[in-house]
Amino acid sequence: MKLPEIKRYLAREKLDAIVLFNKSSSFTYFFGGDFEHGLIFLTRKAAFLFVSPLHEPKIPGFKVIRWNKFKEDFAAFIKKQRIKRVGVDNHSLLVRQKAFLKKYFKAKDATKFLSGLRQAKSEDEIQRIRVACNITDKIFSSIISNFGKFKTEGDIARFIKIQSLENDTYISFEPIVASGRNAVVPHHDQDSRLKKGFLIIDMGVKYKGYMSDMTRTLYLGKPGKKEAELYNKVLGIQEKCIKKAKPNLRAERLYNYSVKLFGSDAKYFVHGLGHGVGVEIHENPSIGLKSKDVLSKGAVFTIEPGYYNQKTGIGIRIEDTILLGKKKEILTKSTKKLICLKI
Amino acid sequence: MKLPEIKRYLAREKLDAIVLFNKSSSFTYFFGGDFEHGLIFLTRKAAFLFVSPLHEPKIPGFKVIRWNKFKEDFAAFIKKQRIKRVGVDNHSLLVRQKAFLKKYFKAKDATKFLSGLRQAKSEDEIQRIRVACNITDKIFSSIISNFGKFKTEGDIARFIKIQSLENDTYISFEPIVASGRNAVVPHHDQDSRLKKGFLIIDMGVKYKGYMSDMTRTLYLGKPGKKEAELYNKVLGIQEKCIKKAKPNLRAERLYNYSVKLFGSDAKYFVHGLGHGVGVEIHENPSIGLKSKDVLSKGAVFTIEPGYYNQKTGIGIRIEDTILLGKKKEILTKSTKKLICLKI
Repeated sequence: MKLPEIKRYLAREKLDAIVLFNKSSSFTYFFGGDFEHGLIFLTRKAAFLFVSPLHEPKIPGFKVIRWNKFKEDFAAFIKKQRIKRVGVDNHSLLVRQKAFLKKYFKAKDATKFLSGLRQAKSEDEIQRIRVACNITDKIFSSIISNFGKFKTEGDIARFIKIQSLENDTYISFEPIVASGRNAVVPHHDQDSRLKKGFLIIDMGVKYKGYMSDMTRTLYLGKPGKKEAELYNKVLGIQEKCIKKAKPNLRAERLYNYSVKLFGSDAKYFVHGLGHGVGVEIHENPSIGLKSKDVLSKGAVFTIEPGYYNQKTGIGIRIEDTILLGKKKEILTKSTKKLICLKI
Repeated sequence: MKLPEIKRYLAREKLDAIVLFNKSSSFTYFFGGDFEHGLIFLTRKAAFLFVSPLHEPKIPGFKVIRWNKFKEDFAAFIKKQRIKRVGVDNHSLLVRQKAFLKKYFKAKDATKFLSGLRQAKSEDEIQRIRVACNITDKIFSSIISNFGKFKTEGDIARFIKIQSLENDTYISFEPIVASGRNAVVPHHDQDSRLKKGFLIIDMGVKYKGYMSDMTRTLYLGKPGKKEAELYNKVLGIQEKCIKKAKPNLRAERLYNYSVKLFGSDAKYFVHGLGHGVGVEIHENPSIGLKSKDVLSKGAVFTIEPGYYNQKTGIGIRIEDTILLGKKKEILTKSTKKLICLKI
């Protein structure tokens, strides 16, 4: 839970606590998984969950305070813990939550500190992401071996969801399955019959609150020479960018490097190169144009160059989840050799 | 999409548009289902979705504007549509979204109007909720016929999730499955082996963005006389409250009526009597203490009295989704006769 870092931050900024509201990603982060209720207070002494009496959560490391009458019990709690000056996560703060805080506290923006803390993953966090990535590989392999059963993009998306549940996880985002010329829409979200040509499958799961993200592009039918070349070009760029990633590299530099590798095809690369992955599917670092982020040691992020040509109707994306640990490691391990399947 | 009501509201309040941000429930409501991207502008002329070029959504009734350069294209769009004064949903507005709006518009709180609009469901909305309720009944019936397979609460929760997917829906909230004395925690969220005694199953699904919510309490083993009596008491209260619900009744009065029916057991009824259901699992009307809401014609809400006795370890809750349509209708139709199963 990184409480020592919190304590140092509170002392340095002369704050009494960090307050986190339910349904925000920082709440999920400190809670250590999904839970939609209550307020978290991280003080120099302990971590508290202040929650309604309808709940009885058991969380290692947390003191659970169940209120009976909210107003009275809340006032008594903050008085007892002497909480006056608090740090908040402005990125996810609602206007009405800000108004609530104003009644009780002096609030200060702790967004940057919290997001930095989250970028450098602990061993426990890495382990969870590792499991999520393994399950993703397993599901991808099932997609290939069950491919004969699928008639539509939606059939594959549903298969991914059911397989996630069978593996005691759930999808980390709505899978993108884009066949034929649908592949030129990076976030394709309609349902069509599977067609000849490239097939993009972008998927991930969530294990104990932590996510994975992987894209593979298959080919239905037999690819032409030009298509195979384009696939290998995108793959080459992806591998070179993974190789270049290292701690303390500015994220924008890595993005610029990928654009350079695309050369004259750069106009068909219409999104960022990657994004951090953790309790959210998109968190820091953002690896794109104008990003101010720096890759930190322990960061987990995607590298996902893509090619989308509206004219030819060709779309290709290849994405892995990468760990900048003691060693750099590709956590999603499904083959990137172009898989061609009959249709 | 209730655009005529929007137009009248805009004219009355001298506003140019309602602005809705992605990931807010009002956005989902007007979009007509799940979609996590873009901004919605409802003007007197049309409904617009302003979205990144990575998406290509097709939505009946919407003009989709895909931006290329956000800043320039956004400025051009609001200039062309002459949008200066906007109404916003303050209930779900983030602090940073408020700051963004301030740069471009004069914003006014439209929360009350939007939540009132959402309470009175249209025929199309009712039809979606009806399908969600039918699927919920179907899944509940499968739980009973597959009961021999389950060893833990988690087995049942997972079965509900997989069945939801098999029926082309997904759960509307994490199912609550509480066996034995876990049933005294209304929002029980741990996983235990199934035990003798009452078993609460609280579940619902989401169909085309619209939700259902139902709770049934079963008995594992053979209930004692006192237990059967308590079950029938809660059931009697639930049926009487459904009977009393009608358009224009103040929600708090219905809640007070249920408390009166509980009599000396009222101290074991620790939550509200019900809540509206639609694109959110908890929306207006709130049927509880101090609620300011009034039941409107076309409202869809739950009635769910519960009994939670920490001393005896007995927990019971019975919940249906109700429609106050031309006729009052119980949309969840699973039997409420106490089902007793072997363990």
